[in-house]
Amino acid sequence: MTFPVVGMVGGGQLARMTHEAGIPLGIRFKILSDTPQDSAAQVVADVTVGDYRDLATLRAFAAGCDVITFDHEHVPTEHLRALEAEGVVLRPGADALVHAQDKGVMRTRLAAIGVPCPRNRIVTDAADVTRFADETGGFPVVLKTVRGGYDGKGVWIVRSEADAGQPFRAGVPVLAEEKVDFVRELAANVVRSPHGQAVAYPVVESVQVNGVCDTVIAPAPGLSEEMSARAQGLALTIARELGVIGHLAVELFETTDGRVLVNELAMRPHNSGHWTMDGAGTSQFANHLRAVLDLPLGDPRPRAPWTVMANVLGGDYPDMYPAYLHCMARDPGLKIHMYGKDVKPGRKVGHVNTYGDDLAEVRERARHAADYLRGTIDE
Amino acid sequence: MTFPVVGMVGGGQLARMTHEAGIPLGIRFKILSDTPQDSAAQVVADVTVGDYRDLATLRAFAAGCDVITFDHEHVPTEHLRALEAEGVVLRPGADALVHAQDKGVMRTRLAAIGVPCPRNRIVTDAADVTRFADETGGFPVVLKTVRGGYDGKGVWIVRSEADAGQPFRAGVPVLAEEKVDFVRELAANVVRSPHGQAVAYPVVESVQVNGVCDTVIAPAPGLSEEMSARAQGLALTIARELGVIGHLAVELFETTDGRVLVNELAMRPHNSGHWTMDGAGTSQFANHLRAVLDLPLGDPRPRAPWTVMANVLGGDYPDMYPAYLHCMARDPGLKIHMYGKDVKPGRKVGHVNTYGDDLAEVRERARHAADYLRGTIDE
Repeated sequence: MTFPVVGMVGGGQLARMTHEAGIPLGIRFKILSDTPQDSAAQVVADVTVGDYRDLATLRAFAAGCDVITFDHEHVPTEHLRALEAEGVVLRPGADALVHAQDKGVMRTRLAAIGVPCPRNRIVTDAADVTRFADETGGFPVVLKTVRGGYDGKGVWIVRSEADAGQPFRAGVPVLAEEKVDFVRELAANVVRSPHGQAVAYPVVESVQVNGVCDTVIAPAPGLSEEMSARAQGLALTIARELGVIGHLAVELFETTDGRVLVNELAMRPHNSGHWTMDGAGTSQFANHLRAVLDLPLGDPRPRAPWTVMANVLGGDYPDMYPAYLHCMARDPGLKIHMYGKDVKPGRKVGHVNTYGDDLAEVRERARHAADYLRGTIDE
Repeated sequence: MTFPVVGMVGGGQLARMTHEAGIPLGIRFKILSDTPQDSAAQVVADVTVGDYRDLATLRAFAAGCDVITFDHEHVPTEHLRALEAEGVVLRPGADALVHAQDKGVMRTRLAAIGVPCPRNRIVTDAADVTRFADETGGFPVVLKTVRGGYDGKGVWIVRSEADAGQPFRAGVPVLAEEKVDFVRELAANVVRSPHGQAVAYPVVESVQVNGVCDTVIAPAPGLSEEMSARAQGLALTIARELGVIGHLAVELFETTDGRVLVNELAMRPHNSGHWTMDGAGTSQFANHLRAVLDLPLGDPRPRAPWTVMANVLGGDYPDMYPAYLHCMARDPGLKIHMYGKDVKPGRKVGHVNTYGDDLAEVRERARHAADYLRGTIDE
């Protein structure tokens, strides 16, 4: 058999769900996992346990793969460049991935290609934050470390110079951004392959709670065709201009004055695309694999009028399995996706998908299941 | 975590696809595989390589599992009974599974519960086959070894006493059945759980070529509601009366005089249910796992007006991967499921699913992809 070997760096739930999508393709799928207990390591046949920050480890892992892709953005950029210099096929490549690793590089590049973003610049200290606030209409100001932040970590909303000091203590460059007045957050998910084919999923609404994605509604309710096309167009432009291969998630603000501004980029399957596992003709994971293998992409269109994804966060109960009986009996159409992770309060340990014709009902079903599994409701 | 461990005996494509369905449930899934290269062993994290005909091997495998289920019916019945006597939880259990292992036992039991079958009896030699023919309207007569047959193996259609000798050479009891005049073959797939919940999938038409399933159409075109309800009712009755836990496939003949007669039983996910992976609210594999875990069952209803499954058989080309480009480019909605098996002429190495509103078009898409992957067409 000459079916290719795909290696994914990382053993989290994205690798777990990518393996699930790879089984029907008949490909070989390997992961480089931090530990043998990681989410993906529990279900993948071919697991290498090692440190993605170690070049020799990455090199040895890559030696057994036809193409390397990623479950996260944390592999040091210099290691990515070293691997490419040695002929390892990385998808996405280092030149693209750096824009998902470094928010400063990302903002500069998006400005250069005319993609609308919140006003921003690198700031040097608390006093400089005040200067930025003065330039952009005053506090509050959003501060972000340019590297290493996710799910609200590495992000601060500061209301005065007095509380602007902390972000600088990490010793990492800090990016200041205007705090945008937005109606809601949207996400535009697209997939692009080496031969230049791209598909765009319907633009979704992403509801954040405490900086963490809580619910995703596909498609975004009431979004005009014009706004939807603009958001998809921005994502396709970014994918093309940055040379992204694979899945690209573009997190957007829909502003009170009718603009869409780019918030964050992710170059891998993304939480805002989990709904596609049960709600689209081809899941983001299947299309990510098809893209990194340079295979024709699958149908991204929705299979139901509405699909809702709700993240299952850890609560006070360490074991969610007993809750299956109630959730599955209450809703035979519920689609549960658990990650095999130990429950910690607030930690993403799974998600549920629901789909149907009536948004309110579909959303209530997802909400109920996520809350019941977490243990915040008991009936 | 107290998520249970499910052990499946067998490493074929059914175990492979059951693992795929088990990943979102967050359960642990182990297999007992003949070799490390078996279809499921390529993708499952926890693989025991061993011989399912050896009781000590089965016992050691079961020791690490909360429940044992099966990818095939070939485990010796006496071993199943020994394991149950030791407290191992088998789903389905030995008393049910024997009806899928021994066609003589199956026919006797179905007659006792009033399920319509072709006329049949155990025959002792070629002369006895002639007597059976005389009793049932003459040759041709269908002869089957009571154990070990599948996909046309162990089945003979004999037209005279002269060619009725071969089946007896195996030294296995031989069952004679009248050759039924049928319009087409149907399959009724149901799933039953220990607490007695059962779901019935739409009755499908199964098109056989040379004794091997070629195409499955869901639902069976033009099947009357009355006939559909009767077929589902038969399957639910068999599941209840035989105490089946998990998935039960009932292969049926729709006769020229408007009857449905039971042909074969399988107590595991079945080829006639592969369409559910992309065509139903819950796949047969997910519902089989939910049943053996005594979890509430998922929605079996179809997601599209028509879903067609076509088996991909091995042809002259050893590697089907290059054909992906053409098939995926031609049909972005095509759902390919490959099993990681080496290609041998006539061997089932995968299947494709298509769904949509127009049966002729849906069927042509599945047919084309299966033929192209096999290599019998080149455009």
